[in-house]
Amino acid sequence: MHAKKNIFYAQSGGVTAVINASACGVIEAANRSAQLGQVYAGKNGILGALQEELIDTSKESSATISALKYTPGGAFGSCRYKLPSIDDNIREYQRILDVFKAHEIGYFFYNGGGDSQDTAHKVASFSRQQGYPVTCIGIPKTIDNDLPYTDTCPGFGSVAKYVAVSTMEASLDVASMAASSTKVFVLEVMGRHAGWIAAASGLARSKQSDPPHLILFPEIPLDPAEFCQRVENSVKRNGYCVIVASEGVQYRAGGFVAEASVKDAFGHSQLGGVAPMLVDIISKTLGYKCHWAVSDYLQRAARHIASETDVAQAYAVGQAAVELALEGKNEVMVTIKRESTEPYSWTTDSVPLNKVANVEKKMPRSFITRDGWGITKACRTYLLPLIQGEDYPAYNNGLPQYAALTNQLVTKKLAAFQPAEG
Amino acid sequence: MHAKKNIFYAQSGGVTAVINASACGVIEAANRSAQLGQVYAGKNGILGALQEELIDTSKESSATISALKYTPGGAFGSCRYKLPSIDDNIREYQRILDVFKAHEIGYFFYNGGGDSQDTAHKVASFSRQQGYPVTCIGIPKTIDNDLPYTDTCPGFGSVAKYVAVSTMEASLDVASMAASSTKVFVLEVMGRHAGWIAAASGLARSKQSDPPHLILFPEIPLDPAEFCQRVENSVKRNGYCVIVASEGVQYRAGGFVAEASVKDAFGHSQLGGVAPMLVDIISKTLGYKCHWAVSDYLQRAARHIASETDVAQAYAVGQAAVELALEGKNEVMVTIKRESTEPYSWTTDSVPLNKVANVEKKMPRSFITRDGWGITKACRTYLLPLIQGEDYPAYNNGLPQYAALTNQLVTKKLAAFQPAEG
Repeated sequence: MHAKKNIFYAQSGGVTAVINASACGVIEAANRSAQLGQVYAGKNGILGALQEELIDTSKESSATISALKYTPGGAFGSCRYKLPSIDDNIREYQRILDVFKAHEIGYFFYNGGGDSQDTAHKVASFSRQQGYPVTCIGIPKTIDNDLPYTDTCPGFGSVAKYVAVSTMEASLDVASMAASSTKVFVLEVMGRHAGWIAAASGLARSKQSDPPHLILFPEIPLDPAEFCQRVENSVKRNGYCVIVASEGVQYRAGGFVAEASVKDAFGHSQLGGVAPMLVDIISKTLGYKCHWAVSDYLQRAARHIASETDVAQAYAVGQAAVELALEGKNEVMVTIKRESTEPYSWTTDSVPLNKVANVEKKMPRSFITRDGWGITKACRTYLLPLIQGEDYPAYNNGLPQYAALTNQLVTKKLAAFQPAEG
Repeated sequence: MHAKKNIFYAQSGGVTAVINASACGVIEAANRSAQLGQVYAGKNGILGALQEELIDTSKESSATISALKYTPGGAFGSCRYKLPSIDDNIREYQRILDVFKAHEIGYFFYNGGGDSQDTAHKVASFSRQQGYPVTCIGIPKTIDNDLPYTDTCPGFGSVAKYVAVSTMEASLDVASMAASSTKVFVLEVMGRHAGWIAAASGLARSKQSDPPHLILFPEIPLDPAEFCQRVENSVKRNGYCVIVASEGVQYRAGGFVAEASVKDAFGHSQLGGVAPMLVDIISKTLGYKCHWAVSDYLQRAARHIASETDVAQAYAVGQAAVELALEGKNEVMVTIKRESTEPYSWTTDSVPLNKVANVEKKMPRSFITRDGWGITKACRTYLLPLIQGEDYPAYNNGLPQYAALTNQLVTKKLAAFQPAEG
């Protein structure tokens, strides 16, 4: 009889308020099964496999593992390291397989976005070809909500809630000062290619005159003259103007509104600074006093105002990965399937990894108003269930009691390895 | 027998997450007293008195008034309009008094910062000289925590909690990515002259290696070379560096780190953009990948994570203003008096307005570490009670249910008036 195979779990890419809830789902489900061995988590994601730095999650107390459910960030470390293609660098795939063999790892659960699903797929194929087949299951995670085949991506619902709540709150502030002071407020949110996060701010709006008055999507190129005209109209009509802008907004004439600077390891341009650029345009053209905020990591780390629905889904996709593996499924990504919208109900399902890899789900055009500056009723109907419920962390002495792991490494068995990068 | 005198209540300057809790305290306390008339709120603060735009708070339901306790922003509108000196523009004082007389207002409760206490003091003197003495009571409000004679300022505790929680959360995010990606995160917070808000981020720190690793105060001039050295040390020692910077940080050589742009009505420079400036310095000098956030209005509007202590104090100072007025006190500002720190207990007290006006309470040097980059134990001891407790608003359909007032105006009795500005 075979020894029980261990699990390698890794977090990938930008972290979220609820990625640790998925880790919790994996670990707790695996611990309940008699067929599975230990859950090893990659220290800093896939780098942990390359460098044979495997965190033994069985060394943590069950209370600590349970606290992962309400702890933001990536508890084992994440990374933006993208494996080269097999043709370009077969030795990295060989190394991962060597580490898996050395530690009797038969399952690879990769918790990330589109790039990670692609990697999981490649590792699965390679391991099969090499005669040591590893069950590779993708666990969706991305605040960008841009993975296909899943109704939503764990991490998104909590950012959506944060952005909707923050827009509502900051707008009350601006509205109360507008008569004699700030008339325009710009909130910059994440979203390079897809405007899902900016769209969520539209949930703060109940009637026509409510903020946000303008939403800027990466999907809709910006014409500065029309933009200024609409800002002026809102100030004249409502007394003020609240704008929520995706970081990835581009000019109709071409180019990002934020000056592109460096590129990250995946070749994405690193953006930031749309809000001050827009304020510069408005101030110079219209002369209004403006304020701006850039929420950056605050939005994706805001576990204190996480969506209860999102937390439940993040946990469920982790748990489902284990269940699928036990059922003998392989090369699939767990998905969230919407069963009904009113009342909202959902379940987990799965999709083959080769369908998911490197496909980006942008906002459907029908979710953006015809004029391009707001969200439609169909978009609201889709988004609203995702921000339902508050799932507050425990507090002690005025601050959240987030989990602190000891992250003890499994003893290494192999010689050191130098990856191509990192 | 005299008719019952009415109250004029006005909100002034930048609003907070809890200024409406003070309004609620005033209105509910006044409504309980048989000696007092109506509470009229100035539409857009003191501008409401100049323009005879008085909101009749008795037209709102008691449920709506009660909901003010958990609604951010300024429910009646605020303003940055500063009355000129009496010598410069006596007609504005005369106008206010005319409006007070016309509407039988015998009490002026001014809810604001140092400038507002100064104005309340001037109105009191002028009304006395003119033979229509109005009881003028200041209600403290400022997220900057810079009013003297009061242990703290309502509004500050909630910003402090928001900044401490956000720093803790964003730091978990940075820590999990630092091995292969972002190594430096800069959070810009409010605070032109006093570093209280930035100091609050220090509450997120439990041990030496914990973030925030560097706090930048307006009280401590910045030397860019030493700054970069400390950033590098933190990255080498901890793997990453989290910096919280006050908007008002200045270079040792002189000048604000953020480029000063326009000035507001009080003559303060309007700042913003310290975070991207610091990131620019770090990137160019050290080459680290950096991220930055500017919380701006989000921090002072974040009622969703308000401090329960702060909410209670905001309500209490509103209530105390009414009680002091009924006791015959005049020309005083309500204060918060700390009775003990462990266990924390406090009460309300008062101080003459002429002592408060235009005095700014900066951080004591003993609250900043000797090296100038962090907070001392004494500072922690002072700050920690102020962020205690969570006072969550009610939610409906995933979003906070903030009060929506009808803000019905009292019928005007006087001719229109054109103030000098606004």
